[in-house]
Amino acid sequence: MDVTLTLQTRIVDTVEVVRQTNPMAGSVTNSVTMNFVANAQLAVGGSAAMVYLADEAVAIAKAGGASYINFGTFEPFYVDTLPQMAHELSVSNKPWVIDPVGIGIGGLRTQILTDFKAYKPSIIRGNASEVIALANLWGLDAGNNQSNVRGVDAQDAVDDARAAAIAIAKWTNGAVAVSGERDLITDGYYLAYSSGGSHFMNKITGAGCSLGGVMAVYATSAPPFIAALTGAAIYNLAGQRAEETAYGPASFQEHFLDHLYRATAQEVASQPFTLEVLA
Amino acid sequence: MDVTLTLQTRIVDTVEVVRQTNPMAGSVTNSVTMNFVANAQLAVGGSAAMVYLADEAVAIAKAGGASYINFGTFEPFYVDTLPQMAHELSVSNKPWVIDPVGIGIGGLRTQILTDFKAYKPSIIRGNASEVIALANLWGLDAGNNQSNVRGVDAQDAVDDARAAAIAIAKWTNGAVAVSGERDLITDGYYLAYSSGGSHFMNKITGAGCSLGGVMAVYATSAPPFIAALTGAAIYNLAGQRAEETAYGPASFQEHFLDHLYRATAQEVASQPFTLEVLA
Amino acid sequence: MDVTLTLQTRIVDTVEVVRQTNPMAGSVTNSVTMNFVANAQLAVGGSAAMVYLADEAVAIAKAGGASYINFGTFEPFYVDTLPQMAHELSVSNKPWVIDPVGIGIGGLRTQILTDFKAYKPSIIRGNASEVIALANLWGLDAGNNQSNVRGVDAQDAVDDARAAAIAIAKWTNGAVAVSGERDLITDGYYLAYSSGGSHFMNKITGAGCSLGGVMAVYATSAPPFIAALTGAAIYNLAGQRAEETAYGPASFQEHFLDHLYRATAQEVASQPFTLEVLA
Repeated sequence: MDVTLTLQTRIVDTVEVVRQTNPMAGSVTNSVTMNFVANAQLAVGGSAAMVYLADEAVAIAKAGGASYINFGTFEPFYVDTLPQMAHELSVSNKPWVIDPVGIGIGGLRTQILTDFKAYKPSIIRGNASEVIALANLWGLDAGNNQSNVRGVDAQDAVDDARAAAIAIAKWTNGAVAVSGERDLITDGYYLAYSSGGSHFMNKITGAGCSLGGVMAVYATSAPPFIAALTGAAIYNLAGQRAEETAYGPASFQEHFLDHLYRATAQEVASQPFTLEVLA
Repeated sequence: MDVTLTLQTRIVDTVEVVRQTNPMAGSVTNSVTMNFVANAQLAVGGSAAMVYLADEAVAIAKAGGASYINFGTFEPFYVDTLPQMAHELSVSNKPWVIDPVGIGIGGLRTQILTDFKAYKPSIIRGNASEVIALANLWGLDAGNNQSNVRGVDAQDAVDDARAAAIAIAKWTNGAVAVSGERDLITDGYYLAYSSGGSHFMNKITGAGCSLGGVMAVYATSAPPFIAALTGAAIYNLAGQRAEETAYGPASFQEHFLDHLYRATAQEVASQPFTLEVLA
Repeated sequence: MDVTLTLQTRIVDTVEVVRQTNPMAGSVTNSVTMNFVANAQLAVGGSAAMVYLADEAVAIAKAGGASYINFGTFEPFYVDTLPQMAHELSVSNKPWVIDPVGIGIGGLRTQILTDFKAYKPSIIRGNASEVIALANLWGLDAGNNQSNVRGVDAQDAVDDARAAAIAIAKWTNGAVAVSGERDLITDGYYLAYSSGGSHFMNKITGAGCSLGGVMAVYATSAPPFIAALTGAAIYNLAGQRAEETAYGPASFQEHFLDHLYRATAQEVASQPFTLEVLA
């Protein structure tokens, strides 16, 4: 059986089911990019709801098919919101995505990210520096190389985070997606590289944040590895297409969202990726 | 006397006065869409100011010709902000608009929405599910059918909320606007359906939120029913026009804001609506 | 030596160094326009990071080459965040920009703005009414004419704030930039007027906020007066160009960001400005 073909079929199914059912994936996400996150989730066919307070986050976690937690722009009351939300997701066994943006900055973010090790998020999406830093924070062996987190940008190359991503995925029994020139997606057993995208992705804020939100939408309808791969593929496709007509980063962002909306399931599944079976 | 013609004249006046005087309508509104709300308010000729803190909300309520409260992305200190702002608006007899987005999610939102019954907001704008849920929450007879609020999307049709909208409008002595395929606007005596718009309105976040903000701008210069009808009309006009040139939801949103800015008062007044006189 | 030519050389250097080094300028900035701020900072070649909490603000202040504090949408915990951030910036002698938006509204904002007199921000950017109000708040002689702050809009003309701007710049040993039809930039010794821009700047929210963020990016790589002048020049250039192809305010904003990205250092330096040597 050709595993790549099987994966493509799963991608087609995921994109189509989401467009047909408009599944809701609620978020606690940063204020800088939450509008972009919501619009990206709507563009791929999902439904969005953003909240801050603990009881609202629990309600959203219960109501949604999956959830998204992004660690940017922390508010003090997240000390209640995020653990309660993670606990609800854990006991109800619902899929959820985290983006550990800003890892290493601030005591509360560090504490909650540390505590999340036990909750085992279904998908972790970050840039290479963030994924390495998370493996270090969680004391996973593969993380013991140094990450170079600087603000919210990646200073490391995707392959520098390969071992960290695999170690995290094995720990969570979920998937890890490392965004970069080509995206690495692994569940600890398979490892895919999805290619495409655009240099403009680094010239707009929220490309990564919104990808996490879109992966949460897909996670309502597919297992973590498929959801992450589908998200990476549609982003790489839409980024590639948007660059063709972009005059600068703002027109790129507009065209990108339009292409997220217009991409067909077959086109998303045809976006190039390579697959390895890990030892 | 032809009531429709009279209404059209009032719409023309409202659009023009706002463009000439740039009235300020301050908001406490959700973080997801506040940028869109502000830009929509500016596009129709108003002026925007968004705040979170109680004393700032009171100051904005005093300074503005009207105000807007949107119930999305609650923060803990809204327990102070929103009642104090509502109290100020009530005692100073200034018009204000609420959008009960997220109704049913969270204890604080529920408590404050319940308490707002006594303050009688001038305009309530929501989708059908939200308006039905509000009538239920306020114990108004017409609300005793079941609403189907799911996250922030409407699951009910506009006409399912007709009785609830009329009951709320009679209670507040204000207006209620129910957004949907065609928009229902009533003050309990008249009931209008405004048509136009675009299917893309559901594919961008904040179409409803920003409409509430625009209605607040118009409420600085017209009674609630006229303000709500003018807001619905310019949204339906701009949505229709934007769809003609949109390639997807993001280009739709850009063209939509541009058309809000370019629409003339005559064009807004000519956007189709039907009118009923209620028994 | 021709001072104007020297300044143009400095502007060229500033634009180019930023594009080559992608310096990080972190912000505590308002929720309405933070997405626009970040995208503008990225468009000119900088890197952005937005935070709310005190320890995160201190971390960002340490990590960045310069910082930006915008006084919109205050949160209660800014009582900790902003003084700690200002203190860190002061002791580490790092450049920072403030935008006193909303000056006069709310007790906490007033208290912190008052306290900031002692910290002497490197660049203050505001509209005429805000700059006059700040000079008044700080008890600087030139500020004793009346400002007309109304919400977030300027009611005063740029030249009404000339004496206030000079007085503040002399106090801070930094620069003050007054945005308006033409922008006034002074360090108390030189005073420049930068021209260009577009009437659409007043029809989008965040033109001023994002300019403050861009000035912070340039302040990582140039002294305050040069950084402020470079920011004003690229905004006036991009605004002028964006207006040529804009159909309304939303397409203007998109084209504006695209032109921020595409403007060459030579073009920015050639944007017209006049220079006076103050007595």
